[in-house]
Amino acid sequence: MKKERFASRMKRMESNEMAEILQLAAIPGLISFAGGLPAPESFPVERMKASAIDVMDTLGRKALQYNNSSGYRPLREWIADRMSKVGTKVEGKDILITSGSQQGIDLTGRVFLEKGDLVFCESPSYLGAINALSAYECDFVEVPTDNEGMVMDKLEKLIDENENGKFIYVIPDFQNPTGKTWTKERREKLLQIAKDKDLIVVEDNPYGELRYEGKNVQSIKSMDTEDRVIYLGTFSKILSPGIRIGWVCAGEEIMDKYLRVKQRTDVHTNSVTQMELVSFLNNNSIENHIQELIKLYGNRRDVMVESVKKYFPKEVKMTHPEGGLFLWLELPEGINTKEMLKKSVDKNVGYVPGGAFYPNNRQENTIRLNFSNMKEEDIKKGIEILGEVIKEEL
Amino acid sequence: MKKERFASRMKRMESNEMAEILQLAAIPGLISFAGGLPAPESFPVERMKASAIDVMDTLGRKALQYNNSSGYRPLREWIADRMSKVGTKVEGKDILITSGSQQGIDLTGRVFLEKGDLVFCESPSYLGAINALSAYECDFVEVPTDNEGMVMDKLEKLIDENENGKFIYVIPDFQNPTGKTWTKERREKLLQIAKDKDLIVVEDNPYGELRYEGKNVQSIKSMDTEDRVIYLGTFSKILSPGIRIGWVCAGEEIMDKYLRVKQRTDVHTNSVTQMELVSFLNNNSIENHIQELIKLYGNRRDVMVESVKKYFPKEVKMTHPEGGLFLWLELPEGINTKEMLKKSVDKNVGYVPGGAFYPNNRQENTIRLNFSNMKEEDIKKGIEILGEVIKEEL
Repeated sequence: MKKERFASRMKRMESNEMAEILQLAAIPGLISFAGGLPAPESFPVERMKASAIDVMDTLGRKALQYNNSSGYRPLREWIADRMSKVGTKVEGKDILITSGSQQGIDLTGRVFLEKGDLVFCESPSYLGAINALSAYECDFVEVPTDNEGMVMDKLEKLIDENENGKFIYVIPDFQNPTGKTWTKERREKLLQIAKDKDLIVVEDNPYGELRYEGKNVQSIKSMDTEDRVIYLGTFSKILSPGIRIGWVCAGEEIMDKYLRVKQRTDVHTNSVTQMELVSFLNNNSIENHIQELIKLYGNRRDVMVESVKKYFPKEVKMTHPEGGLFLWLELPEGINTKEMLKKSVDKNVGYVPGGAFYPNNRQENTIRLNFSNMKEEDIKKGIEILGEVIKEEL
Repeated sequence: MKKERFASRMKRMESNEMAEILQLAAIPGLISFAGGLPAPESFPVERMKASAIDVMDTLGRKALQYNNSSGYRPLREWIADRMSKVGTKVEGKDILITSGSQQGIDLTGRVFLEKGDLVFCESPSYLGAINALSAYECDFVEVPTDNEGMVMDKLEKLIDENENGKFIYVIPDFQNPTGKTWTKERREKLLQIAKDKDLIVVEDNPYGELRYEGKNVQSIKSMDTEDRVIYLGTFSKILSPGIRIGWVCAGEEIMDKYLRVKQRTDVHTNSVTQMELVSFLNNNSIENHIQELIKLYGNRRDVMVESVKKYFPKEVKMTHPEGGLFLWLELPEGINTKEMLKKSVDKNVGYVPGGAFYPNNRQENTIRLNFSNMKEEDIKKGIEILGEVIKEEL
C-alpha cells in the first residue's frame, strides 16, 4: 500500500566509505595523511579572538540578529575585491556566502540536478563533491586527465555520447585528490567546449591561493564572458574550516536561483562569524597569513616528496603538486590500497585509499596523501613506514 | 535537444512572496509587526563576548578546525539534558546540530520527500517550512485547526483520502502563524493516528519555552515510544538567530539518515559557535534569560492584545496566544490584506498578510502580527494606525 518511508535519494547515500576511512584515520597518535585538514598551529587564535571582541563591541546586536540570505555585504565585497585582485573581476553582488564550500557544491546540485542528469568530472575527482551531488540522483561521466588537466578531445567525445549533461565540475588548481593544475590552454579550451555544447562549468577552487612554486594560472571564471562559469571559494584552507565560511560566485540569473535555495535551506550563514571575518580581514593582512601557510605547507610538501622518492619502491608513481594539500600515488596494478590500509594503520600510519575518488571506475591501486596536517618529522617517519608496507605488497 | 538548464524543483521556488513582504517591512523607521525577529535589546552581547573569549582561550585551535557532522558533543548533551528537564527524555546521541531549525526542516525534506509526496500540515502553517519542503516537489494537505489544535477526525479523513502521505508537520506550541497551542489530548490522538496510518510526525518547536500564561503541555516527542516523532528545536528565539544553531532530535534509524545528509550538505555546523554556545550555557543561567524574555515579550503581547481590542473594529477576530511571538487576525471576508499592506506601509506600519501561510487555499483576509520586535509604545501606536487602515476597508 505505502511507498518507501525514506526518499529514494537516500539510496545514493548508503555508502559511508569516507566517514569510515576518516574515523580510522582519526585514531589518536596516528601519523595520518588522510583527511584534508589545515595545520591547527597555523590558526590565528589570538587575532580571531580580537575580531570576536571587536564585533561584539561594535556590532553585537546586529550580529546576533537575523541577517539577509546573500550574506553580510562587507564580506561579499571583500571577497569580490580579493578575487578581482588575483585576476577574476567580480563585484559583491556576484557573491553568495555559504556554510563552507561544501554547501556551495550542495546548492549547485539543488539548482541544476535531477534524477538521471549527468555531471562531467575529472577522473578521479573530489569525493565530497561526488557525495553531495550524488544525493541529487545524478550520474557521473569521468573524463580522463593528464598532467595538463582534463583531456579535451576525450571530454568532447563524452559530451557527444551522453545526452543529459548538466555541468562540468572541475578543480583546476591543485586538484583534489591528484594535486594537478590545469594549463591556461586547457582552461580556455574547456570554456570553448562548454559554450559549444551549452553546458555550465563549476570551478571549485579551495586551494588556489596555496601555491608553493610556479606561476599562477588565471581562473576559468576570469575568462567567462557569458555567466557560464560558477566559481566556488572558501576560507577553510586559508584561514579556518571550523568557521564554515565559503562562497559561490555567479552571474545574475544563476545567482538568483542560488539565493532562493539558500533562503529555504538555512535562511543565512552565521552572521556573527561573517562579521568577525570582516573584522579579521580588515585588521590583518591575509596576504601575510597566506605567505606563512605557503612556507609551512611548501616545506611539508618538499619533505613528503623527498621522502616518497627515498623510501617508496620505484614502481610507485607520484604526482608533483605545485600547491594545495595533496600528493597522489599510483601503485602497481593489483595492489588494493583499501585492503592495505589496515596493515598500514596497524603500523600507525593512515592515508586515504584512492578508489573512492572514482565515481564509476574505481582504481584501487591509488592513494591520496595529505601533507598539510603533519609535522615534518612525522611526515618522514610515516612515509618511511608506508614505504615498507607497500614493499610487502609487491 | 537539451532539457531545461535548471532542475525542475526550481519552478517551486519561483514565488518570492515572503522575501518581498519582508523587504517592504524592513523600511527603516517603520513600525513593523512583520518578520519573527527577537528583540535585539534582549541579546546578551557582553556575555556572548565573554564566551567567545573563553573559547579562543581554552579551545581555540580545536574550535577553528573541522569537527564532526553530528555536532559538538557537549552541546548535544546540553540540549538532551534541557529537553529531558522540560519533559522529553532523550540523550545526546539523539541530537544533531543544524544551522538553525530552518536547516532541520530542509534536511527533513531531503530525508523523506520526493516529487508527488504529501505533507499534512495545519491550515495555516509556517511559511518557511512550506517553502523549504516545496523545494522537494511535495504537495500539501491542509488540515483544519480549532483552538485545541488540528481537528483529528478531519486529519484522519484526509489521510484516508490521500495515498502518498509521508509525514504530518505540526507546530503544537504557540503555532506560527496563529499562536495557537494544542491540548494534550490532541497530541495523544495525533500520535495514535500517526501509528495507525504509519506516518512520521515532525514536531517543530521554536517557541515552546516562551510561555506567558497557562501550563506547559508535554511535547508529542515525549509521548513517542517507537521513534516516530522527529523534533526540531532552535536557539534562535531563546538566545540569538544570528548564530544559526538549531537541532534535530530523532531515533537511531532516522538520525542515521539525517547525519548522512548533513555530511553532504555542509559537513558540520560552525564549531566555534557551537563551543561558544556551550561556554555561554555553562556560565549563565538560560533559565534566567528565558524568564527575562518571558517578561519582555509577555508585556508586549499584553499591550498588543489590549490595543487590538481597543482600536480594531469588532468584526476583526483575534487569537489569544499563551506564548510565542505572534497574534493572528481574521478580518471580514472580502478584505485582501495583501492589497491593504501598501496602504498600511504608507502610514508607516508593516505586517505579514496571512494568505501566504496557506499552501493551497489562501485566505487573504488574514494577518500575522509579531509582537516581540517592537517596543510597547510602538505597538500601541502601530495598532492604532492599523485599526484605522482596517476601518477604511470595511
